[in-house]
Amino acid sequence: MRATIIHGAGDVRVETVPDPRIIQPTDALVRVVAACICGSDLWPYRSMPASEEGERIGHEFLGVIEDLGAQVEGLKAGDLVVAPFVWSDGTCDFCHEGLQTSCRHGGLWGRSGIDGGQGEAVRVPEAQGTLVKLPVGEDSTLLPSLLSLSDVFPTGYHCARTAGVNERTTVTVIGDGAVGLSAVLSAKRLGAERIILMGHHASRTDLGVAFGATDVVAERGDEGAERVRELTGGDGTHTVLECVGLEAAIETAFAVVRDGGTVSRVGAPQYAKVPMDFGVFLRNVTLTGGVAPARAYIDELLPDVLDGRIEPGRVFDRTVGLEEIAGGYEAMADRSALKVLVRP
Amino acid sequence: MRATIIHGAGDVRVETVPDPRIIQPTDALVRVVAACICGSDLWPYRSMPASEEGERIGHEFLGVIEDLGAQVEGLKAGDLVVAPFVWSDGTCDFCHEGLQTSCRHGGLWGRSGIDGGQGEAVRVPEAQGTLVKLPVGEDSTLLPSLLSLSDVFPTGYHCARTAGVNERTTVTVIGDGAVGLSAVLSAKRLGAERIILMGHHASRTDLGVAFGATDVVAERGDEGAERVRELTGGDGTHTVLECVGLEAAIETAFAVVRDGGTVSRVGAPQYAKVPMDFGVFLRNVTLTGGVAPARAYIDELLPDVLDGRIEPGRVFDRTVGLEEIAGGYEAMADRSALKVLVRP
Repeated sequence: MRATIIHGAGDVRVETVPDPRIIQPTDALVRVVAACICGSDLWPYRSMPASEEGERIGHEFLGVIEDLGAQVEGLKAGDLVVAPFVWSDGTCDFCHEGLQTSCRHGGLWGRSGIDGGQGEAVRVPEAQGTLVKLPVGEDSTLLPSLLSLSDVFPTGYHCARTAGVNERTTVTVIGDGAVGLSAVLSAKRLGAERIILMGHHASRTDLGVAFGATDVVAERGDEGAERVRELTGGDGTHTVLECVGLEAAIETAFAVVRDGGTVSRVGAPQYAKVPMDFGVFLRNVTLTGGVAPARAYIDELLPDVLDGRIEPGRVFDRTVGLEEIAGGYEAMADRSALKVLVRP
Repeated sequence: MRATIIHGAGDVRVETVPDPRIIQPTDALVRVVAACICGSDLWPYRSMPASEEGERIGHEFLGVIEDLGAQVEGLKAGDLVVAPFVWSDGTCDFCHEGLQTSCRHGGLWGRSGIDGGQGEAVRVPEAQGTLVKLPVGEDSTLLPSLLSLSDVFPTGYHCARTAGVNERTTVTVIGDGAVGLSAVLSAKRLGAERIILMGHHASRTDLGVAFGATDVVAERGDEGAERVRELTGGDGTHTVLECVGLEAAIETAFAVVRDGGTVSRVGAPQYAKVPMDFGVFLRNVTLTGGVAPARAYIDELLPDVLDGRIEPGRVFDRTVGLEEIAGGYEAMADRSALKVLVRP
């Protein structure tokens, strides 16, 4: 089959790889109907050392089950399913607690002999715990929003949930990328009435406003933080959703959070240390978040997507074929596309 | 009157200062019956640059009201009262939320013309919001435990509460100082059944066991963290109470917290940045805590102290007169005393 392999910074190729097949009785074989490129895929796209062998890439996909291992129950060939961006057994203590990203028998796509999501097919380990059946056909117009359940929307939702967003909390969202916009939509869904979006790409913040942002702050850094404080009577907001992953964004987050408030981070951190000095200590600011256990949220979010109450798939603003995926990476890297959907 | 002034590292003196008197109608004048030395007082005691003028010091005290401003209600001359270590008005939004340390009209003892607690008397601003009446006489044997309500015990309690300790969470407490031992007692009060105390002073960890610790780990650093993981099947504990304030303690905290768990810090941070890299992010670890709003917890904890159900005052292992307070500082600094009570 054909699949995407990253060989280094700026070097994404589609190559022929071995066809996947069932190996374990807990596996499923999924033909990919739609995949996408994640903001976190851009980190290796920007910095990976050159490698002749390269690495499989992609961790967001939905598709049709073509074959199943003997032990998989509740799924059948022909089912349309979405895969969260970490596979998990669904039976261990962490899975039961809703932290499938720490599953005792789980793992990442594209690692250790597991296929990546940006290809024609994927062998899915622990299929029964991992995959979620979608009650629509593969030609459904809901496909972009359903695909967003694999990562980007639950990541924004994890940010809002762990921050404790509710109808009584004010919210600042830092970042107008697809995760930041998903965080806006999530905060709105959780009842927040005041959602300040920090971002400076008008086409993106416009979508943020459509998703529920009540204010947009285009200024960055200290100036942006000052503006958020002005908007909140000098206090900052109860919750801050950090959807970038750079140290500057974390610094802004602490500058705009209200005393006693919570910063949640879901931007994959490109830093090793967080500035949490005596000043932050005196203000009792909490830092939470982390990699989102998407699987934990799909059951909760799916009905809203199926009913059309929310349209998280609006973050996709370009579609490419698998053979054109390198152009998709380029478009996301140069910000001419917000998020790229891939059709194998 | 006589009061303690710190003039620099290792230089604590008792000097004659102006007698306090009522200035604002919201003030109270309190004759100090018992005060104490805080672990946080040791930071300037170890590092303050020499100063001829010096600074008033001390923020934990209880005493008898001698005079009251005209606007103070609910208190009267002769009442025995305890003061939390931050004064606050009790009426602003932060006070109503239980975050009196961020009170819009509050402040710290010993700063900006306000008396310190280590002296014969204190002018208490915002007395109605700040002071809590104690229904015992000044000769009560409960005085050490009641005095502990001003800071050390609520600080341990804040650590346990913000970490989310309950009957279902396992707990590691880092530090066998008075705050760490108070955190053990707090975790026990909140129902924790497994409390691992990391500390290497046997006389202190013995008190920790009396307070409810089920395991003591005397090893430090990586070795100590390894031991905690051994004790918890490799996983670490759901909550970690960091009661030291050094970066090494924070590193240990992240090393012993279970995936999805919470580290709470109440040791005044002697660091500017916290190591929260991609590994911590992948494990969804939360960092919370901060300076404890002692006032928020006194009403809840006082009945247990009055009934003798808990004895947080057992952390005091030495008593000195005010004129001998320099010896008290020396004893706490060289660890020959755990916590020193001062009798003016």
